Amino acid sequence: MALIVHKYGGTSMGSTERIRSVAQRVAKWVRAGHQLVVVPSAMSGETNRLLGLAKELLPQASTPEAMRELDAVAATGEQVSVGLLALALQAQGLQAVSYGGWQVPIATDASYTKARIRSIDDTRIRADLDAGKVVVITGFQGIDEHGNVTTLGRGGSDTSAVAVAAALKASECLIYTDVDGVYTTDPRIVPEARRLPAISFEEMLEMASLGSKVLQIRSVEFAGKYRVPTRVLSSFTPWDIPLEQEARSGTLITFEEDEKMEQAVVAGIAFNRDEAKISVIGVPDKPGIAAMILGPVADANIDVDVIIQNLSHDGRTDFSFTVHRNDYQRALDVLRTQVLPATGATELQGDARICKVSIVGIGMKSHAGVAARMFRTLSEEAINIQMITTSEIKTSVVIDEKYMELAVRALHRAFDLDHAGEAAPGAAA
Amino acid sequence: MALIVHKYGGTSMGSTERIRSVAQRVAKWVRAGHQLVVVPSAMSGETNRLLGLAKELLPQASTPEAMRELDAVAATGEQVSVGLLALALQAQGLQAVSYGGWQVPIATDASYTKARIRSIDDTRIRADLDAGKVVVITGFQGIDEHGNVTTLGRGGSDTSAVAVAAALKASECLIYTDVDGVYTTDPRIVPEARRLPAISFEEMLEMASLGSKVLQIRSVEFAGKYRVPTRVLSSFTPWDIPLEQEARSGTLITFEEDEKMEQAVVAGIAFNRDEAKISVIGVPDKPGIAAMILGPVADANIDVDVIIQNLSHDGRTDFSFTVHRNDYQRALDVLRTQVLPATGATELQGDARICKVSIVGIGMKSHAGVAARMFRTLSEEAINIQMITTSEIKTSVVIDEKYMELAVRALHRAFDLDHAGEAAPGAAA
Repeated sequence: MALIVHKYGGTSMGSTERIRSVAQRVAKWVRAGHQLVVVPSAMSGETNRLLGLAKELLPQASTPEAMRELDAVAATGEQVSVGLLALALQAQGLQAVSYGGWQVPIATDASYTKARIRSIDDTRIRADLDAGKVVVITGFQGIDEHGNVTTLGRGGSDTSAVAVAAALKASECLIYTDVDGVYTTDPRIVPEARRLPAISFEEMLEMASLGSKVLQIRSVEFAGKYRVPTRVLSSFTPWDIPLEQEARSGTLITFEEDEKMEQAVVAGIAFNRDEAKISVIGVPDKPGIAAMILGPVADANIDVDVIIQNLSHDGRTDFSFTVHRNDYQRALDVLRTQVLPATGATELQGDARICKVSIVGIGMKSHAGVAARMFRTLSEEAINIQMITTSEIKTSVVIDEKYMELAVRALHRAFDLDHAGEAAPGAAA
Repeated sequence: MALIVHKYGGTSMGSTERIRSVAQRVAKWVRAGHQLVVVPSAMSGETNRLLGLAKELLPQASTPEAMRELDAVAATGEQVSVGLLALALQAQGLQAVSYGGWQVPIATDASYTKARIRSIDDTRIRADLDAGKVVVITGFQGIDEHGNVTTLGRGGSDTSAVAVAAALKASECLIYTDVDGVYTTDPRIVPEARRLPAISFEEMLEMASLGSKVLQIRSVEFAGKYRVPTRVLSSFTPWDIPLEQEARSGTLITFEEDEKMEQAVVAGIAFNRDEAKISVIGVPDKPGIAAMILGPVADANIDVDVIIQNLSHDGRTDFSFTVHRNDYQRALDVLRTQVLPATGATELQGDARICKVSIVGIGMKSHAGVAARMFRTLSEEAINIQMITTSEIKTSVVIDEKYMELAVRALHRAFDLDHAGEAAPGAAA
């Protein structure tokens, strides 16, 4: 008997028909002798519907008071889900009880709309599990120290599920989702992309942050911090497939590096075409210049991703960075009005038609020449690299957007991700 | 400056447009210098939608465990309303904060789907009011001693509002509703029916229980118990009518009998055509016979209203009572199978085509001959009276359903309710 946490997304909860199917799946696990805690999202579309109503009433809900109310309204979507799922579980003949985040309680800080979990009291959950009940807990939300409802931000239910699993020291946290696992890259771009049976926590973090939006990144951080074995698997398999088959499906995020296994060098290829590049040309190369450029950008609440400062010539240098495309025009305005006059830089250049392609792999730590092979591969395809950044387990390049598919396919092939047969954590089939 | 509680029904909260109008009305009261607590219902249709989803998943939710989940789901309707209304109030430039019943907290017993309020903690509300905030509180719901969400049953938001007003010792509780007050009788039947500017608590209780379904009866009991000045008024007047006019509109439920004013004998005429009459004929007249007849009916969860036992002749009597029409066939079955054999009664008679007409008035306490005038009036219209019951402030008759309108109109005229001009609490214009 194991204690298992299941998390179901909004699509899985999208209708009473689908909720019944979730209940049948959970019942299968219970009947196999497991203790189950289930964290469902709001029914698909519900959170948007609620926030849409709120926006009609107060288009700019930016004060803490307004964000408090947004959270109170948005949190109801999950409260409906847990109650309905508990009823569906009871209809399956199981004992089931639902809790809102405030009832557990799941304590968070008071950062409305993006709160962080501080602690989870497992007393009530454990008592229910010991009494043979399935416990259904709202995702996405908690309660601050003053008894106000908070939400964790979009996708926060993943984080809730992993946090609950951590608090309960669950054997595994199963995230049932629209995809059937983590792939070496997006199969829509590379048909040969393969599902990874396992991926290390660090790799998953890089894959997630680079746009393989399978799991909310905060949930991956949580899984890593508390070493919660977390599995991403498909919610679209029939609920009555054999449990053993289901339990091995998807992709398991792992924490223990298995030294005996051969690490594949690269686990996957991530990409992101939501960014735009900005270069400040002819910046006087003096201490503090980066802060002078990026300070006003940060003050405007614009996140910066890749940052490159070139070697200087004649006391001047070029400074380039990328921002989200939605912030591109605003960033240019900030630079034109505040940074150019202040720094004495000569010129601004911008390009919204770029993309970022990254190779991610824990094997890169111990294998030399991985970045070089990446650059050579792109060179062989005559793809010009505009920016490069590296970390211990990933190398990213910024290239012209039009080469994205070509680059991803070439790299997928070059790092031998097209072929099945390996079973090591990190890259296998 | 006064502390005022407003309650708005589901129609008033039915769209963002209507919620905005509620916020504008509340803002008018705040700007006139009052402290406001607002108790809105769920958006119209929402509670039914939620319970419909629940019913699809578990058609027979009759266990405490299932009813707990029904309450958790149903309560979200009001949680959405309070958050949206707080946002709409903020959009009006007011400070506003919303609370779910569990946050106040509004403590109830654990009778899911029909919980009763035990206490309301006013600490948090008072602090907010003192800080200049409008406090928006969910109706319909509370929290039991184990931290489970409970609901008060249909129409429970009226009770919540009155209970909050009682806890805060509010100057007045204003119930904004689909009707513009309590009338001497139903204007659809008697066009001359007049709105009562005031009605005594006892009269309101009788009018409500007899089918003038303006307020949930439990809220009237609550208002009476705690002497909360409660006003029923229209939510359909434009929000920007002068506050003084609005504050005097509708019908005020009063508790202090003003001895100086001339009491009208009868405040209004109530009627009810939801009942059916059953007679058990030839019952041996011996002690305990009423219990032998009504015991099995009560065991079948059938409520009995009017009960009449005739004088006995030759040791046998006739026993008549009324039940809700929906229970009529079931009551007959119970009597036929259980009561006839056990009592030795000779015969069952039933009539589903009856109605009950009542005159209600606190003045009846001190005026003789009121019932006689009622019977004479019906006699003059050749209406046969089948059953009579009386209490201190009401007299009810059961008559053939087809005479209902005729009886109500004749009584309305006979007790001079057609004419305006009086201003005494109890019946005035």
